[in-house]
Amino acid sequence: MKVNGRSMRTIWLAGGERAVEIIDQTRLPHELAIVRLSTLDHAATAIRTMQVRGAPLIGVAAAYGVALAMGEDASDFGLDHALATLAATRPTAVNLRWALAEMDAALRCLAPPRRFAAARERAGSIAEADVASSRAIGEYGAPLIAAAWRAKEGSRPVEVLTHCNAGWLAAVDWGTALAPIYRAHGDGVPIHVWVDETRPRNQGAGLTAWELGQHGVAHTVIVDNAGGHLMRQGLVDLCIVGSDRTTAGGDVANKIGTYLKALAARDNDVPFYAALPSSTIDWDIEDGAAIPIERRDSREVTHVEGWTDAGERVAVRITPVDSPAENYAFDVTPARLVTALITERGVCAASRAGLLELFPEHC
Amino acid sequence: MKVNGRSMRTIWLAGGERAVEIIDQTRLPHELAIVRLSTLDHAATAIRTMQVRGAPLIGVAAAYGVALAMGEDASDFGLDHALATLAATRPTAVNLRWALAEMDAALRCLAPPRRFAAARERAGSIAEADVASSRAIGEYGAPLIAAAWRAKEGSRPVEVLTHCNAGWLAAVDWGTALAPIYRAHGDGVPIHVWVDETRPRNQGAGLTAWELGQHGVAHTVIVDNAGGHLMRQGLVDLCIVGSDRTTAGGDVANKIGTYLKALAARDNDVPFYAALPSSTIDWDIEDGAAIPIERRDSREVTHVEGWTDAGERVAVRITPVDSPAENYAFDVTPARLVTALITERGVCAASRAGLLELFPEHC
Repeated sequence: MKVNGRSMRTIWLAGGERAVEIIDQTRLPHELAIVRLSTLDHAATAIRTMQVRGAPLIGVAAAYGVALAMGEDASDFGLDHALATLAATRPTAVNLRWALAEMDAALRCLAPPRRFAAARERAGSIAEADVASSRAIGEYGAPLIAAAWRAKEGSRPVEVLTHCNAGWLAAVDWGTALAPIYRAHGDGVPIHVWVDETRPRNQGAGLTAWELGQHGVAHTVIVDNAGGHLMRQGLVDLCIVGSDRTTAGGDVANKIGTYLKALAARDNDVPFYAALPSSTIDWDIEDGAAIPIERRDSREVTHVEGWTDAGERVAVRITPVDSPAENYAFDVTPARLVTALITERGVCAASRAGLLELFPEHC
Repeated sequence: MKVNGRSMRTIWLAGGERAVEIIDQTRLPHELAIVRLSTLDHAATAIRTMQVRGAPLIGVAAAYGVALAMGEDASDFGLDHALATLAATRPTAVNLRWALAEMDAALRCLAPPRRFAAARERAGSIAEADVASSRAIGEYGAPLIAAAWRAKEGSRPVEVLTHCNAGWLAAVDWGTALAPIYRAHGDGVPIHVWVDETRPRNQGAGLTAWELGQHGVAHTVIVDNAGGHLMRQGLVDLCIVGSDRTTAGGDVANKIGTYLKALAARDNDVPFYAALPSSTIDWDIEDGAAIPIERRDSREVTHVEGWTDAGERVAVRITPVDSPAENYAFDVTPARLVTALITERGVCAASRAGLLELFPEHC
């Protein structure tokens, strides 16, 4: 999507195709820093430290990470080491495991000398497939926004609430939750987005607000506590969130706090959609309770990172030094609270039956 | 309650009874700063800037503010000016209006020369009544915690979730939501408190965590997004929150985000209590939708205040410079989501009938 008026993606080949470059998302929104990744360790560190984050982008970055590893050591040992190293970076997103399995399948039977080139090609095709998938999610989701606008008789912009960042920064382009918004915006539907700041890492305040602003979509940042009040006031027409892992039964593991917004949406008859590429679906799990929930460093809770007026990046402590903190990164929204899933093959009920109508190959 | 092992209150007479002193709550948890208020303007500023905050304490501080004003100008004009100035400081808390009406009634018919002494005395009695009220809330609420402990067969501490700060820092002593916790803790019931950080002003992270820690109550700070997940995991036995205004019908206006926790509690069969002195009840309003909701400076959303490692207090920006923000300070939790109200006269259903059983004088 647009940055400073020019089209941009989150990850691309560079350095004569022997490296990849990424936007360092830990520097946004205050600095657009490009980082070059040349080794497996670079890629693993970028995922672990969340320079790249978002389920689809994690998968693509991991695929490129395998490619970089093949440039270092294309042996079976090198391949196994790359897959294990990258798999250990983040526990919840299923795309990571999916992308690594794709890379394994593409490379395992090749002679080592052929693996580097094949890995770059397969990673590139995964990236292109992600763009196509995100674009399709936008196409299928945009009519839901247009319908909300028509229901308001065009009197005021459609009010969409989103949580965390499931925009193009979380993918390669377009995004998942924000893809329908970008598409509807492009189609001329007036939209205003309520952006949950999304503590503890503030991906809403820092990333979603930034990408919406850069692309020219009207938005307002709110604290995570505010969404329920907005819905009670009739100020939200629909919610769209992403998904880090979707079970075959339609449960949605997404950024911590998603479940609370889904409850508020249900209590106020506001439609609640999760937008996701099918690579996010874990067909092996029916019930979201089986999804491992990542627990991250408590420092993300006790401290907040931001920028001073002088432009200096600083972490400030907000808790007493002696008070412990706990940091669960995701929660599970049960399918019963999800109005529908928006996928690259269409919109379906959040249920096994709904998903199988679109993905019958998983019957 | 205890600070550094010694008993302390939030507000007290000083300077030969011609001034009051307060804990500057904007400096906590990193600094225990005492501020002296000698004039009406001092008092109004302290309330407006939230050096004192919390519905009960706002009422007491406003009462003392009238007393300070009478030391400056005890005329009818001076009294009217003081009441109007203090009433304008915060719009949502009903205790403010209640305390000002009490002061008006106590002073209006007195000759001006007698007003200063009478005002100090009346403010002092309001403060003592608040302490007695908070202590009683603790006595009536503690058995609910003890019952939860017995229900767990004493196997693990009772897990209580609270939002914002409704502790002794929000009152004169004991607090409202935290009073039952302090009382049960004093009775030897093992308790662990999940403390919502409570963006945007982080009164949970900064104040509740500090006062629980100082008093020796086990607690863990979490982001506001986490409570729903904890409840789904069975890690919360009950929720207790305060109330800035309670309608005659039992609706509870409290810090923004309270409603989301009440929804999660209901969805997980976790009891959800609001603890409040009857001065918080607005007998004129049945439906919470009629309560004016304060909107505060958007800078509280776009910036987070905290302390650097060097101990410097800094506000850091977390949003893009061009992104607007909106800051609703309270929300309304409908009575249907409130298991019971804990008041200074006992525990009752969150309904007009329930309240009237305890407060029949409002029939």
